Amino acid sequence: MRENYTLQRLYIDDPLSARARIELSREAAHYLTKVIRKSEGDFVRLFNGESGEWRAVIETVSKKSAALVVQEHLRGPAPTSDVTLLFAPVRKHRTAFIIEKGTELGVRNFQPVLTARTQFPRLNVEKARLQAIEAAEQTERLDVPEINPARPFLDVLGDWGDTPILFADEAGEAEPARDACAKLFAPLAILIGPEGGFTEAEREELRAMKNVYPVTLGPRILRADTAAVALLSVWQSVSGDWGWAWSRKGV
Amino acid sequence: MRENYTLQRLYIDDPLSARARIELSREAAHYLTKVIRKSEGDFVRLFNGESGEWRAVIETVSKKSAALVVQEHLRGPAPTSDVTLLFAPVRKHRTAFIIEKGTELGVRNFQPVLTARTQFPRLNVEKARLQAIEAAEQTERLDVPEINPARPFLDVLGDWGDTPILFADEAGEAEPARDACAKLFAPLAILIGPEGGFTEAEREELRAMKNVYPVTLGPRILRADTAAVALLSVWQSVSGDWGWAWSRKGV
Repeated sequence: MRENYTLQRLYIDDPLSARARIELSREAAHYLTKVIRKSEGDFVRLFNGESGEWRAVIETVSKKSAALVVQEHLRGPAPTSDVTLLFAPVRKHRTAFIIEKGTELGVRNFQPVLTARTQFPRLNVEKARLQAIEAAEQTERLDVPEINPARPFLDVLGDWGDTPILFADEAGEAEPARDACAKLFAPLAILIGPEGGFTEAEREELRAMKNVYPVTLGPRILRADTAAVALLSVWQSVSGDWGWAWSRKGV
Repeated sequence: MRENYTLQRLYIDDPLSARARIELSREAAHYLTKVIRKSEGDFVRLFNGESGEWRAVIETVSKKSAALVVQEHLRGPAPTSDVTLLFAPVRKHRTAFIIEKGTELGVRNFQPVLTARTQFPRLNVEKARLQAIEAAEQTERLDVPEINPARPFLDVLGDWGDTPILFADEAGEAEPARDACAKLFAPLAILIGPEGGFTEAEREELRAMKNVYPVTLGPRILRADTAAVALLSVWQSVSGDWGWAWSRKGV
């Protein structure tokens, strides 16, 4: 139903099913009335990773609370591909950017890693989760990515399994990104280093791993946030879910 | 010479040649002393699109002025590929983001276009130029992209020549981005619509042009700034200058 597609979306942490009654938090009620300016009888879409997307009608709404009744099942559930983004936290607004863009580009797990040269090791997981929810609401995905607490980089490598790691390598010789992306399918991880690059010790750990694929992103030095968005885009385009002709006409 | 590669870079609007003496503006002198904390006798790299990149030594420097003497020619000139980004201006920080990331991703010309649904039509060309210069300094490119004043979208299409336009099409059926990118080489333009999409009249103009290639960027709705970065990345990776193995060892 085309008109459903234009309805605004809210992420709801509870299970959704036909005729379920959903009480919104105070923040969500404020968003509903003051930001997207909805009132009783209006429709929205509700979604989460387990229940997919549903149309709901607003039953009661005030500045402080709102209740919705779930009606029709519209889509899913359909989790995004199993893509993990391993990234060193950067300045606050650039980390926010990585969370927003990564969510749009289909990251399922964000794993902040603390490397020797990570200059901004603090990452507010709860805030990042809210940024991811907002981005997921905008981007029509049916699940919200997981934000993991930051961990030391070498610890993450130490208990890493067989999942391939596409590594945006700014130094040394590396394969063009499109060629490595063409060989690798989900589950996979994309690894972006800190602004100052990896240390020689960290690079040695990476080189010792069989499932690490260093790739080049061309002749210009990219900021860490740019590299994350760029490599995610190339992988999605070459081997991810951008690979066939999409049409939204039927949604 | 490996050590030259670590020297910080300054864009200089004047011709550069061996033994030329370069006087910096007050702002640039402030940047040199207070931000990158250089003093007399230190080296930096100077560059512009016509002269390429040179090593220079700081002869005199104060908070208000500085003079450098150009020494050794290091690289270029080497203009980036002829890629134009046609984009509708968005909120200020998102336009800044498009300029920064577009510069890192090798845009040669930024052409803001005013579509019917463009909500933030004002774009400060001089400010955007400073953002582009800063991004060019960071990203190791040898030229600085051109920022054109915003023009009505249909006027831009009206006097457009034969250059192919890769069009990030969020509605309707379109070819996967990687397939269209594989067919198109520079000169080309990448077109990103406004957040609200194009009107039917604008879409008809686009459809009437033979050199417009609509492409899809997958099943998730991307913000305009994300779409710009994503499509630039895919094109650079598939058909642009990321296409062979780069090594910075020799720089």
